[in-house]
Amino acid sequence: MSVVLTPEEELRNRIDRFQRALKRKGLDGALIAQNVDLFYFSGTTQRSVLYIPQKGSPVLMVQKSLERAREESVLELIEPIVAPRDIPRALRTHGFESPRAVGLEFDVLPVDLFMRFQRALPSVSFSDVSFIIRRLRMVKTPFEIEQIERAVHVVENLLHKAQSSIEEGVTELDVDGLIRRWARSQGDQGRLRMRGWNQEMLQAHVLCGETGAVPSFIEAPIGGSGTTPAIAQGAGHKRIRRNEPILVDVGAGINGYLADATRTFVIGDLPEKFYRAYQVLQEIEGLVESEARPGILCSHLFHEALKLAEAHGFGGYFMGFGQAKINFIGHGLGLEIDELPVLAKGYNSALEEGMAFAVEPKMVFPGEGAIGLEDDYLVVANGVRKLSHFEDGIIHL
Amino acid sequence: MSVVLTPEEELRNRIDRFQRALKRKGLDGALIAQNVDLFYFSGTTQRSVLYIPQKGSPVLMVQKSLERAREESVLELIEPIVAPRDIPRALRTHGFESPRAVGLEFDVLPVDLFMRFQRALPSVSFSDVSFIIRRLRMVKTPFEIEQIERAVHVVENLLHKAQSSIEEGVTELDVDGLIRRWARSQGDQGRLRMRGWNQEMLQAHVLCGETGAVPSFIEAPIGGSGTTPAIAQGAGHKRIRRNEPILVDVGAGINGYLADATRTFVIGDLPEKFYRAYQVLQEIEGLVESEARPGILCSHLFHEALKLAEAHGFGGYFMGFGQAKINFIGHGLGLEIDELPVLAKGYNSALEEGMAFAVEPKMVFPGEGAIGLEDDYLVVANGVRKLSHFEDGIIHL
Repeated sequence: MSVVLTPEEELRNRIDRFQRALKRKGLDGALIAQNVDLFYFSGTTQRSVLYIPQKGSPVLMVQKSLERAREESVLELIEPIVAPRDIPRALRTHGFESPRAVGLEFDVLPVDLFMRFQRALPSVSFSDVSFIIRRLRMVKTPFEIEQIERAVHVVENLLHKAQSSIEEGVTELDVDGLIRRWARSQGDQGRLRMRGWNQEMLQAHVLCGETGAVPSFIEAPIGGSGTTPAIAQGAGHKRIRRNEPILVDVGAGINGYLADATRTFVIGDLPEKFYRAYQVLQEIEGLVESEARPGILCSHLFHEALKLAEAHGFGGYFMGFGQAKINFIGHGLGLEIDELPVLAKGYNSALEEGMAFAVEPKMVFPGEGAIGLEDDYLVVANGVRKLSHFEDGIIHL
Repeated sequence: MSVVLTPEEELRNRIDRFQRALKRKGLDGALIAQNVDLFYFSGTTQRSVLYIPQKGSPVLMVQKSLERAREESVLELIEPIVAPRDIPRALRTHGFESPRAVGLEFDVLPVDLFMRFQRALPSVSFSDVSFIIRRLRMVKTPFEIEQIERAVHVVENLLHKAQSSIEEGVTELDVDGLIRRWARSQGDQGRLRMRGWNQEMLQAHVLCGETGAVPSFIEAPIGGSGTTPAIAQGAGHKRIRRNEPILVDVGAGINGYLADATRTFVIGDLPEKFYRAYQVLQEIEGLVESEARPGILCSHLFHEALKLAEAHGFGGYFMGFGQAKINFIGHGLGLEIDELPVLAKGYNSALEEGMAFAVEPKMVFPGEGAIGLEDDYLVVANGVRKLSHFEDGIIHL
């Protein structure tokens, strides 16, 4: 397998769109420092700060490794620096004498790095461009869709492997470990990214019976016990038993791009309630699939889904229980798992062609467990195209 | 396996020490928000902000999940909040009317969350306490040492498994996948943490032949190709061949606490140069082992190690090559892999009893590969105690 580099026209197109946004905001440029945004605009995650001016060529200022940054990025202006204090010199070298208004990623940039930027560029006024970047990133190119489709393929293989390995008596951790191994054997990138503060994405959530209903800090309808309060999510020591729901939510990453899918398995059988609830989840996914198209509001899809769950009497269990309930039913897919758009209460933006998202209707029954399904979609001209095709329904093992 | 909660006297002791530090700095209190620091002081990582006053009981203000935070933390004052804007009300409820000088974790706190704290508490002057927290955390209690020893045990088992599974023709990814699986089957927590900005720790670096010498952005002497520039480190698609060095650097986490070890394997044989270089690494580790004790400066150990590498003519390859060279030979072990102390150039603090650290002398030969070893130590009254006991030397398979 050869390494896939981000093509030049891809970077040029991203930078062009961002430069237009900078112009609209009246900014002279932006300093990009977070790994994912850096990768999006430069094709490398080598330790760097990328200056994207409103007009002209961006300057990639590299701390480590310069050699590797030059191999990975097709950007022309690549400049070594030792620390942020060298930024003004590097900018002057390329004709950017004295920017006055510069954007930063306020949602992820640590305060002390921000202060170092302020000391290096004392006459600059900084403002937040993180939402602009996240909005740019939400519409995918054919190159990006290809990467996501490859990740979807891996995720489906991981569900197949889970299906063939879940047995009575094995622990959640056993299945989780197998998924992690298989992921790597299929070229999974080895780390999946989530942007939100303190959010820490795991490759899989394998949760059986009552652990499916253990709430957690993460921005997700399910959490899991984990093995310790230090990492309070995901698989734990619980053994899989007959006649309880087994929820497997897996992610994978190829060339930076993520996919995400969920299925519910059972050994034996479940009380009737779970089957009825699962039918509602299928109806909800079907509703999103039929209604989603360019122009429709994300919040509308969320409310329609919630209404449907409530109409069937499952409103109280839908997307979590009690205080741990969340207000979204889907999220964008891309370089981060909490990418825009979110199909969420209050997210009143419209879908656009080229957006990719996961729909993940789930129900949580306290003390009993969680059930759910999750599939990945691409917004096309007149609707959505389903990217994942794993068999649906509660899957009997 | 039952869940290990952080004992009450453990939290009380940590908070006491922090409160004394706050007093010395003239701060009224600190707001702790990052997962790891939150876990250290409260025993939970549920989405919260923890106010530790200079005097009195801390207040854990929980966003999600309140129920789980109450189960995991033995702190008495646990208060639900919806957002940072509710902090003043929660503090007033417990008698903290108007703090004026409050510490924050500037090294990890994102700018926008900082600004939300500023808006919620407009009359407060904020300053950085992250280094104080990191310094507090570096001296371990018997409870913490027990967790680290459990993680060391897992790491040694992972090296054994790597030893028994490496074969000619398997890929770095295959071995990495097996290590990930085995880690989970031994109760590894599933995610290992690194504090530094943009640093992303992987469970293992399995690097054979020339990929051992591929430089990377991470704060480590070795990097690896990875599968993509998006995650530019760790195992890649390269197949393991005879007569090349195979470096396996693995981490594991138990109840939040990490351990880290490295060994070098070979199928067949290596050029004489590698054996000579490896002997130098063993000498260096031996030197650190014999010189490390309470009172010795960390920077001194680094310089002694570097001098020894140079005296043997390996200075140019020691701890990386060219621009990717790093200036440390060891790092603290605890809740994060880049914990204090660092045995580094310029880190002029002395070792203290109770510190735990990994020593990782490595050599990188461009185009040929990397060799290294790494063991974990605890500082005791009159020296150090070695925690890891895996066989040493270049290990023939």
